[in-house]
Amino acid sequence: MKACAVIAEFNPFHNGHQFLLKKARTVTNADLMIIIMSGNFVQRGEPALINKWERARIAIDCGADLVVEIPTEYAIESAKEFAHAGIDIAHKLGAEFLAFGSENPNLDFENESKILDRQFSLENKKYNQNFAAQLFADTSIASSNDILGINYAYWNSKLDSKMQLVPIQREQSEHLDTKIEGNIASASAIRGALLKQKDNYQEAIPTRTLEVLTHSKLVSWEDFWTMLNYRLRSSTADELGQIRGIKEGFENRILDVVGDSSSFAELMEKLKTKRYTYTNIQRNLVNIFLNIKPINFSISKTRLLAANSLGRDFIRENELKSVIMTKVTKEDFESDYAITKRADDLYRLISPYQWGNSPIIK
Amino acid sequence: MKACAVIAEFNPFHNGHQFLLKKARTVTNADLMIIIMSGNFVQRGEPALINKWERARIAIDCGADLVVEIPTEYAIESAKEFAHAGIDIAHKLGAEFLAFGSENPNLDFENESKILDRQFSLENKKYNQNFAAQLFADTSIASSNDILGINYAYWNSKLDSKMQLVPIQREQSEHLDTKIEGNIASASAIRGALLKQKDNYQEAIPTRTLEVLTHSKLVSWEDFWTMLNYRLRSSTADELGQIRGIKEGFENRILDVVGDSSSFAELMEKLKTKRYTYTNIQRNLVNIFLNIKPINFSISKTRLLAANSLGRDFIRENELKSVIMTKVTKEDFESDYAITKRADDLYRLISPYQWGNSPIIK
Repeated sequence: MKACAVIAEFNPFHNGHQFLLKKARTVTNADLMIIIMSGNFVQRGEPALINKWERARIAIDCGADLVVEIPTEYAIESAKEFAHAGIDIAHKLGAEFLAFGSENPNLDFENESKILDRQFSLENKKYNQNFAAQLFADTSIASSNDILGINYAYWNSKLDSKMQLVPIQREQSEHLDTKIEGNIASASAIRGALLKQKDNYQEAIPTRTLEVLTHSKLVSWEDFWTMLNYRLRSSTADELGQIRGIKEGFENRILDVVGDSSSFAELMEKLKTKRYTYTNIQRNLVNIFLNIKPINFSISKTRLLAANSLGRDFIRENELKSVIMTKVTKEDFESDYAITKRADDLYRLISPYQWGNSPIIK
Repeated sequence: MKACAVIAEFNPFHNGHQFLLKKARTVTNADLMIIIMSGNFVQRGEPALINKWERARIAIDCGADLVVEIPTEYAIESAKEFAHAGIDIAHKLGAEFLAFGSENPNLDFENESKILDRQFSLENKKYNQNFAAQLFADTSIASSNDILGINYAYWNSKLDSKMQLVPIQREQSEHLDTKIEGNIASASAIRGALLKQKDNYQEAIPTRTLEVLTHSKLVSWEDFWTMLNYRLRSSTADELGQIRGIKEGFENRILDVVGDSSSFAELMEKLKTKRYTYTNIQRNLVNIFLNIKPINFSISKTRLLAANSLGRDFIRENELKSVIMTKVTKEDFESDYAITKRADDLYRLISPYQWGNSPIIK
């Protein structure tokens, strides 16, 4: 069986995602669509709107055959780390294709990715989303999807995974668009509408997503404010400085303003500067919240979230049990999966769910 | 002016306290009663029922002239540390007498305290409340008040402070009594009644205390459960093991049971063993909650909470401004007063108060 991988967040799953899965299957003629998905915290440095199990279920119902999880410590990081983890997992699972949404599918992603190699080695410590944007400032590569695509190409080459890259033209809406028009809108526009309790997003998502959203607690940073506020107020600058990604005195800046902040939104407002993007700051805060210290990249296994019978056949035929955790053992929870477990434990304090003892099988 | 010091918690201030202050003033013929009081967290390893400013106000209204604060890191510790801080401060303020409640005022506290010296040096690491109780198991010294008295005597001698010890016979109720009979009851019996919303405690407290209790949010550990639960779930065993007082694998025990605990009471229930008293466990938890690492004893200043005009005269006449913080500076907040500030910041998240910019002057 030939598999096509898609690295995704589905936060939440919308018509654009469904279109991408369909199109990728047609274009590649793959037997199987594998989703490599973020868990309960996502790349923008915030909790996912709905939990990972519900998102995995929707994916299976809407065109995926197998959904596995990106460990949280990589899922919440910049394009470079996020792509590294995604490609590493796709490669381990033996995918032949990697499909992704793109504003400019005609770009030579592989060739463009060489700029990353030069820049990563030159300026390793400075790499962040701001920097990524600057890097491509004079090119036609402006969208975060294309930047992600270039990062995928970079790691595909670096890890020698030899997947065929399949950029799929995105329809209408830009990723960062905040408008909803017709039946295609970005996940961020949909989240915005949901959190503001508007209902104009409904045309832009499949019925299956709508069903889940309607009966779910929608989770946002504000839900974790008491805990984050407590963490910040009970930490010294030195302790915050030991958290991954905190640098250039940002720990002092946080401690200077937290005393006057009475909500997450207020804290963010006070922390914003020209130097740091909203996403950078959120990533710092989620690293503090999850108490993540600097780590070396290492993924030995990925957790199975959901599969249909085709997905299960694929695992069996390719003897992937050593790479895919169908049950998470105590040892996994204490090693590879320790931070993801912590993230899940905390997420469940806000939005309790019963999933998790075993994957969802359809 | 001759001053008599009383080391206290007033959690809450009751008729027994009022009796002690009156009696101490009569017996010593002191011009001035100084209270050296715990702040927002107390020796049993829990938050005070009402905040320190309200408690200091009540004290001034009910017979005290000057109320200063024991820094939080000492106020929440065993009799030894608590007494050390209290005596150190009383000595710095130049008190001539130290009065305290006692079940057996005829005890030779100074002589009895010699046993502590021998035991502290022999078994420094094992000293805790259990141990203190064992130490006096074969003597007539059974009450925690008398154990405290002996600890006062110990430090009075050790610090060469030469205060005259004035044990005052306690009326009726034992400290640990949970019953309320008539107009004398222990603070712990009163707290119990208050938290169970009974009103049989009202005869046992002055009108002044009743007024404050009636309009105050009563604070208990359960109010901090979300924060403590978050702290435990986001910490490794190694990190918990670095907290002051955590030893003998207690960090693993906590992490083993927190996942199944949905309230502070449930966590305590699961943590109780023969080896650890309720108070020991609470002290461990408050050290974790306040993120206190091992520290060396050092008090250079104490914070003024409240004073009447006699109290202010005493500060002026004895040039105590270098020892008493009438205003807390940024430097104080970052050194001597750092942990107390943290404790106050967290306490105020549950029970906001406006006090604190300057002491209460009556």
